[in-house]
Amino acid sequence: MSEVREKALAAKQVTSQLAALSTEQKNQALLAMADALIAQQSAIIEANNVDLKRGRENGLTSALLDRLALNEQRILAMAEGLRQVAELPDPIGEVLETSVRPNGMEIRKVRVPIGLIGMIYEARPNVTVDAAGLALKTGNAVLLRGGSSALESNLAIVRVLHEALAKTELPPQALQIIENPDRASVDELLKLNGIVDIVIPRGGQSLIQTVVKNATVPVIETGAGICHTYIDASADPEMAMEIAFNAKVQRPSVCNAMETLLVHESFAKEHLPALAAKFKEANVEMRGCERSRELVSDMLAATEEDYATEYNDYIMNVKVVGNIDEAIAHIARFGTMHSECIVTSDEQNAAKFLQQVDAAAVYHNVSTRFTDGFEFGFGAEIGISTQKLHARGPMGLPALTSTKYIITGNGQIRS
Amino acid sequence: MSEVREKALAAKQVTSQLAALSTEQKNQALLAMADALIAQQSAIIEANNVDLKRGRENGLTSALLDRLALNEQRILAMAEGLRQVAELPDPIGEVLETSVRPNGMEIRKVRVPIGLIGMIYEARPNVTVDAAGLALKTGNAVLLRGGSSALESNLAIVRVLHEALAKTELPPQALQIIENPDRASVDELLKLNGIVDIVIPRGGQSLIQTVVKNATVPVIETGAGICHTYIDASADPEMAMEIAFNAKVQRPSVCNAMETLLVHESFAKEHLPALAAKFKEANVEMRGCERSRELVSDMLAATEEDYATEYNDYIMNVKVVGNIDEAIAHIARFGTMHSECIVTSDEQNAAKFLQQVDAAAVYHNVSTRFTDGFEFGFGAEIGISTQKLHARGPMGLPALTSTKYIITGNGQIRS
Repeated sequence: MSEVREKALAAKQVTSQLAALSTEQKNQALLAMADALIAQQSAIIEANNVDLKRGRENGLTSALLDRLALNEQRILAMAEGLRQVAELPDPIGEVLETSVRPNGMEIRKVRVPIGLIGMIYEARPNVTVDAAGLALKTGNAVLLRGGSSALESNLAIVRVLHEALAKTELPPQALQIIENPDRASVDELLKLNGIVDIVIPRGGQSLIQTVVKNATVPVIETGAGICHTYIDASADPEMAMEIAFNAKVQRPSVCNAMETLLVHESFAKEHLPALAAKFKEANVEMRGCERSRELVSDMLAATEEDYATEYNDYIMNVKVVGNIDEAIAHIARFGTMHSECIVTSDEQNAAKFLQQVDAAAVYHNVSTRFTDGFEFGFGAEIGISTQKLHARGPMGLPALTSTKYIITGNGQIRS
Repeated sequence: MSEVREKALAAKQVTSQLAALSTEQKNQALLAMADALIAQQSAIIEANNVDLKRGRENGLTSALLDRLALNEQRILAMAEGLRQVAELPDPIGEVLETSVRPNGMEIRKVRVPIGLIGMIYEARPNVTVDAAGLALKTGNAVLLRGGSSALESNLAIVRVLHEALAKTELPPQALQIIENPDRASVDELLKLNGIVDIVIPRGGQSLIQTVVKNATVPVIETGAGICHTYIDASADPEMAMEIAFNAKVQRPSVCNAMETLLVHESFAKEHLPALAAKFKEANVEMRGCERSRELVSDMLAATEEDYATEYNDYIMNVKVVGNIDEAIAHIARFGTMHSECIVTSDEQNAAKFLQQVDAAAVYHNVSTRFTDGFEFGFGAEIGISTQKLHARGPMGLPALTSTKYIITGNGQIRS
């Protein structure tokens, strides 16, 4: 039997046991995991050094090496994350609906774990801890398939977590990691229908598209963000500039950062030059439509492909539009249904934008950078869903649950 | 451009318009559709006769011909169905959560349409009307791909519905049907990511598996039901017999009917012979394990394959188990996570079964036949989900919706 199948079956075997754990038992397990990470940080850092060394030999960029690197502080942050998840309310067992039918039978809809969650992700080893914590808190088993560049770190982390779990009532089998993370392991994982209940990919567009295109098990698509900020004619100039600047510059590498600025022509005429100067000062490369280039002399020309690109970098597109409908149409064409913002003082336009733009999060006079489980007050986040099924937007603990109808009666039969 | 792509794009084009319709506007459209079906029933019945004639020539079974046949009464029932859907509360616009964050921004989670729903289904032409009604009521566009045996009926129905919609504020483009329903049309529909938001298959196992295995768009898996009734040691004999009999015999062709009866050995010793006699009287063929065959002489032997078969017919399996754990393990192995029942007077065993059995609907002392949107009081049903993502069990109108976060503020930026 392949490694993936064997580990999936081992995890699946304990799902019923996990579903029956009390909140207390799950929280104790999370706290034990947190303590163990700190107690055994030197072993983890040692393993991480092996990954870093190989990464340097393989010519990883310094940005990727930085994402991969673990130190005392980062391990402390991972442990803190687990402790915070332990403190969150447990969604399992929550009764969402109840009804008594005319024949006297009672129907309750209750939250239950999903079962076995497959996670496919890339370089950051902290995802290993995050995903384990969130899945176990919600009574799920989890099969992790991390990237090969973080393999030693991930294996060391899971070894530490397994040791910790062995002393708790949560069966260590619930947490599995693929030790040979080749391409075939992904292909197989994506087709384990009946064993793996859902797969969540976390990483770049190519990883996510591979998962979406090849999976036969249900997938929650996450992460791709071509986000827009539309500055309407009536926008407060100072607010508009602050929001657009924040959306692009505060952290360009993340999915809720702005890629394209849409500006109403009358606002553009008056304020685009000043706005562009501010972006230029922050070393943001701007690619614009013809009309923006007439207003700002040293802007590159934006291509169709640029509008369809998630830069995740200090690069942005600028497009002047004649009216709000043009802005909405541009977003419908190039957006990824992640986060979209309108800055306006016109309540009618705001309402129109919020209603017509089809995205997980639509903003009026607020930066798109807030699309995030922590900022939304969920206390944790397993990813940001950009699909419309099951969960949309930042996914907190409830997104890792399913439901079950429990029907009780005294002999009801159907006639 | 292919027919499928062209029609999907035409439907997609009006999704934003549909999302903005008022409940009143949608209901008027549904009522106009209902009136038109009745007014133009002769055209529909004529088209249906063409399907029936071809069906007879192609040697369809009388059961299939019956499912295909339309008459005045059945068209009236379809119209009635639309009127009932018009009367249901509209989930769109419902505010599910609100919060004000410390920075003053307000977050609302509201129900929105999914967008464009693809429906792939088999012989019954009434699904055409059902699916159209439920999708449009929830502000969705719908692309129908029915079976070729009902093609003329389906096209005639959609023609009538289009004429009706043309006089309402709901754009007729929202309802599309494939006129050339070959295999390639399914293959293409399943891969229209970015255009089709979800696909719902309705039909036999082979159709559903084709969809699940080939779709790259999100799918809601429906329908397969290998359901069990477990009679525990302490079950009230009369209640147990009635529930098991009802679960099998009241309508064997449907997904929530029982396929396998599990009986505790002590109950079996005393009552299995009488129970078997009752099933025999109703012409149910029984296939049993060794121990049941010792108690009931003329039972066939059940194979592993039998336990894994959804008969949808007057055939059932019988298995004697030593205890409740054996019953739960059998269900975990052979069940399809649809509907499972325990008959017992022992509250502890009931609780254990309801907790540990992983299915959309778990029953205590109630027949599995109740897993149905109407019986659950949802007023309508688009199918019964047997997956854990998005919706599980009978799917009413809310299952055809997604959500959107609407964030409003006065210049909040992230620091």
